[in-house]
Amino acid sequence: MKSAVVLLSGGLDSATVLAIAAHEGFNCFALSFDYGQRHQRELLAAAEIARSMAVARHIILKLDLRQFGGSALTADIPVPKDRNTGDLAEHIPVTYVPARNTIFLACALGWAEVLQAEAIFVGVNALDYSGYPDCRPEFISAFENLANVATKAATADHRPIRLRAPLIQMGKDEIISAGLKLGVDYSKTFSCYDPPDESHSCGHCDACQLRLAAFAKLHQTDPIAYV
Amino acid sequence: MKSAVVLLSGGLDSATVLAIAAHEGFNCFALSFDYGQRHQRELLAAAEIARSMAVARHIILKLDLRQFGGSALTADIPVPKDRNTGDLAEHIPVTYVPARNTIFLACALGWAEVLQAEAIFVGVNALDYSGYPDCRPEFISAFENLANVATKAATADHRPIRLRAPLIQMGKDEIISAGLKLGVDYSKTFSCYDPPDESHSCGHCDACQLRLAAFAKLHQTDPIAYV
Repeated sequence: MKSAVVLLSGGLDSATVLAIAAHEGFNCFALSFDYGQRHQRELLAAAEIARSMAVARHIILKLDLRQFGGSALTADIPVPKDRNTGDLAEHIPVTYVPARNTIFLACALGWAEVLQAEAIFVGVNALDYSGYPDCRPEFISAFENLANVATKAATADHRPIRLRAPLIQMGKDEIISAGLKLGVDYSKTFSCYDPPDESHSCGHCDACQLRLAAFAKLHQTDPIAYV
Repeated sequence: MKSAVVLLSGGLDSATVLAIAAHEGFNCFALSFDYGQRHQRELLAAAEIARSMAVARHIILKLDLRQFGGSALTADIPVPKDRNTGDLAEHIPVTYVPARNTIFLACALGWAEVLQAEAIFVGVNALDYSGYPDCRPEFISAFENLANVATKAATADHRPIRLRAPLIQMGKDEIISAGLKLGVDYSKTFSCYDPPDESHSCGHCDACQLRLAAFAKLHQTDPIAYV
């Protein structure tokens, strides 16, 4: 059976990607990071999604990016609220975590090589995103190039590792539509950057705004609780 | 003052690279990893080297690669001894840690971006090496390409990050010669994969053999203790 490592943040995008990978017949190994993010709520969501989708294994890797800082998610910098979501791509916001996707994918690559996995799945998307450089097709393609010179798997063993980003050209509403068709339970997902408590999302950070706008566009109600 | 992140393992190569970066006028930030390697001795060496070379800051990042396994350095697989060092590049040995340099460089990239550093220095070398795919010039070049599409620094802020591997085409003896000229104290370094105790090296693993052969070629005595 073909295997894949799937980066799973606990958010809406990565839950959808996990469903896509499973639907394509991959035996899925989910990888999450306890990287010093503002809250642990998304890791609870990741664990619940991993369990409900019956992944082969779920690893939550600890890696303290607060030692570097430099982001509203890993240092004492406020999360922006009520920004105009139409302008998100204009300026890279302070929620950008330096090199985060590079770091997460590098770890996924290590695990993929050990598992002899054929693919790594990641939920980046380049349309309704927050302007992050490591969510663009150029980044995905550069990382796949790297993966295939970096590893024993791809060089000596001639088993290249594909980097799959099935959401890259999808809008958030298309992502939710695709997920609903595959049976994703979005009530288990969590996207908020700055939740007021364990069971509510703020509704005003970029992540909440993008998510709420997408459900509204589909004439659906977002099943998670907001304050 | 220009800054650089220097990957520092505690071994002979990375100590030399740190001296080269400092000699070129970089304000150096040293990064080591407590990644579940077989022993902590090399991290003590890294800390001592960082202190003696007066780096701006030294971070030892914890990242448990034993969760993935797949290497003699991160799983219960014996370290090969007394191999013919002439044949090291023929087969990639079990001491290869899947995607290790990709993971380490990805973390270095995150820190470099926060520091607004101009460069990352890494002590890989492609001649007297152990056959690892992530020690080759193709790998360095692919990672530098990635770094410059992955980061806000390189994209929005037009501050590309150079990946410097000054040892890449040097033999181990040339590395030691260069380091001695720059005042590197090799008694502080530690290379052994499988030390019998805190103060001795085994003398028989690939790392010890390459190191001993290089000092012998220079008609010098390796200043560290072997059993």
